Amino acid sequence: MSNREIVKVRGFKFASRSAGIKKSGKPDMALIYSEVPARCAGVFTRNKVAAAPVVVTSPRIKQGLCQAIIVNSGNANACTGEQGLKDALRCGEATAAALAIPEEQVAISSTGVIGAPLPMEKLERHIPLLAGQLEAGQAAAAAEAIMTTDAFAKISSAIGRAGDTEYTILGIAKGAGMIHPDMATMLAFILTDADVESGFLDTALRQGVDCSFNSITVDGDTSTNDMVLLLANGQAGNSEIRAGSPEADAFTERLNGVLLDLAKMIVRDGEGATKVAEIRVRGARDDAEARLAARAIATSSLVKTAFFGEDANWGRIIAAAGYSGAEVDAGRVEILFGEIPVVRNGVGTGKDLEEQATAVLKNRDFTVTVDLHLGAGEATYYTSDLTCDYVKINADYRT
Amino acid sequence: MSNREIVKVRGFKFASRSAGIKKSGKPDMALIYSEVPARCAGVFTRNKVAAAPVVVTSPRIKQGLCQAIIVNSGNANACTGEQGLKDALRCGEATAAALAIPEEQVAISSTGVIGAPLPMEKLERHIPLLAGQLEAGQAAAAAEAIMTTDAFAKISSAIGRAGDTEYTILGIAKGAGMIHPDMATMLAFILTDADVESGFLDTALRQGVDCSFNSITVDGDTSTNDMVLLLANGQAGNSEIRAGSPEADAFTERLNGVLLDLAKMIVRDGEGATKVAEIRVRGARDDAEARLAARAIATSSLVKTAFFGEDANWGRIIAAAGYSGAEVDAGRVEILFGEIPVVRNGVGTGKDLEEQATAVLKNRDFTVTVDLHLGAGEATYYTSDLTCDYVKINADYRT
Repeated sequence: MSNREIVKVRGFKFASRSAGIKKSGKPDMALIYSEVPARCAGVFTRNKVAAAPVVVTSPRIKQGLCQAIIVNSGNANACTGEQGLKDALRCGEATAAALAIPEEQVAISSTGVIGAPLPMEKLERHIPLLAGQLEAGQAAAAAEAIMTTDAFAKISSAIGRAGDTEYTILGIAKGAGMIHPDMATMLAFILTDADVESGFLDTALRQGVDCSFNSITVDGDTSTNDMVLLLANGQAGNSEIRAGSPEADAFTERLNGVLLDLAKMIVRDGEGATKVAEIRVRGARDDAEARLAARAIATSSLVKTAFFGEDANWGRIIAAAGYSGAEVDAGRVEILFGEIPVVRNGVGTGKDLEEQATAVLKNRDFTVTVDLHLGAGEATYYTSDLTCDYVKINADYRT
Repeated sequence: MSNREIVKVRGFKFASRSAGIKKSGKPDMALIYSEVPARCAGVFTRNKVAAAPVVVTSPRIKQGLCQAIIVNSGNANACTGEQGLKDALRCGEATAAALAIPEEQVAISSTGVIGAPLPMEKLERHIPLLAGQLEAGQAAAAAEAIMTTDAFAKISSAIGRAGDTEYTILGIAKGAGMIHPDMATMLAFILTDADVESGFLDTALRQGVDCSFNSITVDGDTSTNDMVLLLANGQAGNSEIRAGSPEADAFTERLNGVLLDLAKMIVRDGEGATKVAEIRVRGARDDAEARLAARAIATSSLVKTAFFGEDANWGRIIAAAGYSGAEVDAGRVEILFGEIPVVRNGVGTGKDLEEQATAVLKNRDFTVTVDLHLGAGEATYYTSDLTCDYVKINADYRT
């Protein structure tokens, strides 16, 4: 359904540059531009300490139209007080001026170190240059320019049809650390040339984010800067996709594919991560409790280090479910690593099966299924292993 | 107030042995015995997957009298189903028989690997031998026998007076991993020869545990086996200490000293830990919100790796407070490392002070104070740093 090919999304252009915000000299600014104002939806961090770009952009997106996204990496413009707000506004102003579009249709996004003021001189010098070099084919370079500790750029796309008209969806994202439900230092920009009704666009994004970006965890931390934006500029020329139609279902399916694909790439790129585990909880009393259990397991440092050690230590999994807040009857719990049952009725199934389960953990990707056998509640989380490299990366991040 | 000297607690005796439960051959069984039935209080794990010894011991302690505690390390007897319950009961039975005391006055406690059956043959052979070698002076050896991944044995004591009569309090504890609020693979046995009224004994323990063992975190995980027991055998001969009296206040103070001392030792011995940080949150809207914020900061992997890296990365601290669930107004937040203010009104105070704060982090012990400036709520948590060694220990634990 979704794939990593870079499809052309009609009417969207990209530019990126090295503005010198990152000490490394790598690209650190990107501009995404739609030739016409696009309908938009956004999901933002729920951290009470929201960074300036989130504070400025969130109400703009609610107004429903967006024509440009200006992004910098290397500096989060978070915990920067009033000056930070002024700087975010100034970025928007400069972008609007360079593109000759209304200021309130510019989204501003930042990611990087917290607490340092934006080097505005650099940003202001490079914004007009970005505007001057916009091209349709530069999405991959934009995906690279928004990276911080990411090891690879994250792109996913999908192609759909509404009636006779083909449309495309293209998503780029960044994020490798501080990844946790309810968003994280994670940015994702999803662009489509489909014509999509505004209310449905918003619902589709929210539901899609819940099952993707809000169902991944690397380290349990939630950042001040997270932002997922969805822009639909209608340039495919299809008749408007509205809620409740078969076209809406098809659009949702493709959108969810792109969101989940990007989310999984973020887990794979979890700082220091060597493995991606899919934690499926079923048989909870309801979906909310399944989510609690899946989240506790996916977040547990002990579970994540056991994955790193390729140790089928199901005791840590059952213990995490036990303290998650979900109802758990120890005597009913069933756990599978891949297809291998290691726990039945709360008790280990023996050395032979545990050895087979250990073999499952040697894979780079595997699934752990926990059936609580109490009801029909289900939830899935994606998590990485916790490694020495994670500690090294985060102990040295600013030095 | 409290100290690591091993005071004599009248009427209590100890024994420990190597029963071969641990592969290493190190001591793995301990017996604590009171010459007379002692009044008792207990706090147990809230993990829904409680281990067999917790299931058996919890109702016994509620009955109010306890004369012996039989403990094994190396095997948690958790997730062992019905057989596990039978084995725990059998340990109690054997201990009661060896000491000629009622079965329901025996507490059973286990810690170690989850999911393996207890090697009952070994335990049954060694229980009578333990009973035969009880001595007053062997508390330190008992503290060693209950260790698992602990690097050092944990003992703390205090001396108090009630009227003209001197009494003592002696606590031993184990725990280094899976340490988190609401208990963890953490065992603590507190013994006093004071004569203490039962209801007050229970209240004093509960309140003391909230501010000590329930205010520490190493990795955010909560175990299936945690247990804190307080036994008061009255052998000091004081007149009974009752709630509301000056003697009760003095007893509480000494008990809290021992509990907090042991709790801090567990943090210091956090798996792979090199530092102990005291996280003080003040100015929250209420104590409950202060606790949420302190807990989120103390648990954050990013904060803990920054401590390891001796990086005064206050952005991660403010971000953790922001997602904790506590009300936070970013513009009011103040943060101090030791006495050094690094954030005022939500904004960094500059490079000079940050360098001074970095110097604070070079210490083995330091305090981080976060003032939310919203109210009078306060809470303190104790946490360790997150290190490469933590990952190594937990990736290799069972292999």
